[in-house]
Amino acid sequence: MTAVAEAGILVNGEARAPEGAVVSVFDRGFQYGDGVFETLALVDGRVREQAAHLERLARGAELLGIPAPEVGAFEADIAELSRDLGRGDRAVIKLNYTRGAGGRGLAPPPDPVPTRVAMRLGWPGHPVEWAETGVRVITCRTRQVSGAALDGRIKSMNQLNHIVARMEWTDPGIAEGLLRDGEGRVVEGTVTNLFLVRDGELVTPDLAGAGLPGVTRGRVLEAAASLGIPVREDPVWPGDLARAEELFLTNSIIGVWPVRELDGQMVADGAPGPVTRRLQQALEGMYAA
Amino acid sequence: MTAVAEAGILVNGEARAPEGAVVSVFDRGFQYGDGVFETLALVDGRVREQAAHLERLARGAELLGIPAPEVGAFEADIAELSRDLGRGDRAVIKLNYTRGAGGRGLAPPPDPVPTRVAMRLGWPGHPVEWAETGVRVITCRTRQVSGAALDGRIKSMNQLNHIVARMEWTDPGIAEGLLRDGEGRVVEGTVTNLFLVRDGELVTPDLAGAGLPGVTRGRVLEAAASLGIPVREDPVWPGDLARAEELFLTNSIIGVWPVRELDGQMVADGAPGPVTRRLQQALEGMYAA
Repeated sequence: MTAVAEAGILVNGEARAPEGAVVSVFDRGFQYGDGVFETLALVDGRVREQAAHLERLARGAELLGIPAPEVGAFEADIAELSRDLGRGDRAVIKLNYTRGAGGRGLAPPPDPVPTRVAMRLGWPGHPVEWAETGVRVITCRTRQVSGAALDGRIKSMNQLNHIVARMEWTDPGIAEGLLRDGEGRVVEGTVTNLFLVRDGELVTPDLAGAGLPGVTRGRVLEAAASLGIPVREDPVWPGDLARAEELFLTNSIIGVWPVRELDGQMVADGAPGPVTRRLQQALEGMYAA
Repeated sequence: MTAVAEAGILVNGEARAPEGAVVSVFDRGFQYGDGVFETLALVDGRVREQAAHLERLARGAELLGIPAPEVGAFEADIAELSRDLGRGDRAVIKLNYTRGAGGRGLAPPPDPVPTRVAMRLGWPGHPVEWAETGVRVITCRTRQVSGAALDGRIKSMNQLNHIVARMEWTDPGIAEGLLRDGEGRVVEGTVTNLFLVRDGELVTPDLAGAGLPGVTRGRVLEAAASLGIPVREDPVWPGDLARAEELFLTNSIIGVWPVRELDGQMVADGAPGPVTRRLQQALEGMYAA
């Protein structure tokens, strides 16, 4: 598999060289983070879960009162950014969609003209064996933002809290950090959702108060159901993680990463567990189909 | 007093026409809201509270691990943006300072090159008599974000929650909306701090869990102390507002706005109270000196 380098940026559908890929300083995406984003995997020339990502983006825009993207616009962007890739290539597509320029102060302008950005980025440099060997994870001191109007519903361009969490470690051997909410419940990773297995049951945080339900999280829940694995969405506490037989992380780019070590403690015997493996394979099968 | 129209944008110190005032789509200010901002009043050719605003901006950058602005850079920007204004003019200066372009994912790049934007905007169009007659205010349904690492310490470019609160009203006769935290304490307005007077004592939310301590809030507390008015920073509940003898709002542009109506209920007899008046005059005196 060839990780294809950065190639292609479209701003409102127009191709731009990196130095010309710009937005106005008045764009509310820049001024306030007033927009949404999505990150999609482009593998073997095909974009995974395009419909699910574009639906979430559109739903987020709607909740924010940002006019819907033009019909087919992001689809055309994605097609343009992926057309030179084929079997054996992989890359990442990132989409940003903002309320566009204008509006004095926080109040949005009455007739916003949204800004649409689509770019193709290289595949991230994580060691490929992490999907097999499992990863090392820490619990962040930084707490999840909770109580916000937008919790768990919008993949917004307000990512500063997660950046502060991500800055808690620099060791490249640590793959992810987990965030707890104000009460101490474990909610999600900085860029992943979290699952645990106990007594043969699959559990994932219910994201009732905070946290974003990822597209891959949804697919894993579906795959578990179709495999007859009992599933529960519930509050998850640090003690639940300590007692788990298996732990794993998901997102659209990494798929499923088994967790072999949490805060310096081995998870079970450190080897990826059988439920994690089955779900990993189910997901791979789904995308290969 | 002439409200001067938009005039002048500097990006990293370089003058730009509005259509050329742009930042890279890779700027982390755009991608994530990874930066801080300040809004300053420019009255009679003089910038108010420049040192306090630039100190807060620098402190926010430091807390985020963004390299400090070049010494004197924002000062030079502000001087450039204000040099054609004099007695009788007023305008607003807005500063943005981001971690700049780059970094794959949330993790900041090892050697960030910050982006510095300074612009001069026209004075907002609020009716000037609001400072005399008082304003109408509502309580927002949207709750303050709390539990975040950055609460109350950083004036960040993550403003989406406050935008959602601001979108709760469109009536131009409503001046501001108040936000409560998850437990129901009243924290701040969308762009103001809040004060109440009861039994001759001045009370303002303590901002222990959330909310930004404004520069003008600080000056009002100082002015109250020097006038011998007892002051308390404490949790404030909706019931405290309902029982208040006086309510007022502050920020760097509006100064002090008496509140005459909250959620459709008159505050006391609806006229600005004596403590509000004294503090308003003290502040005006301070800035005239």
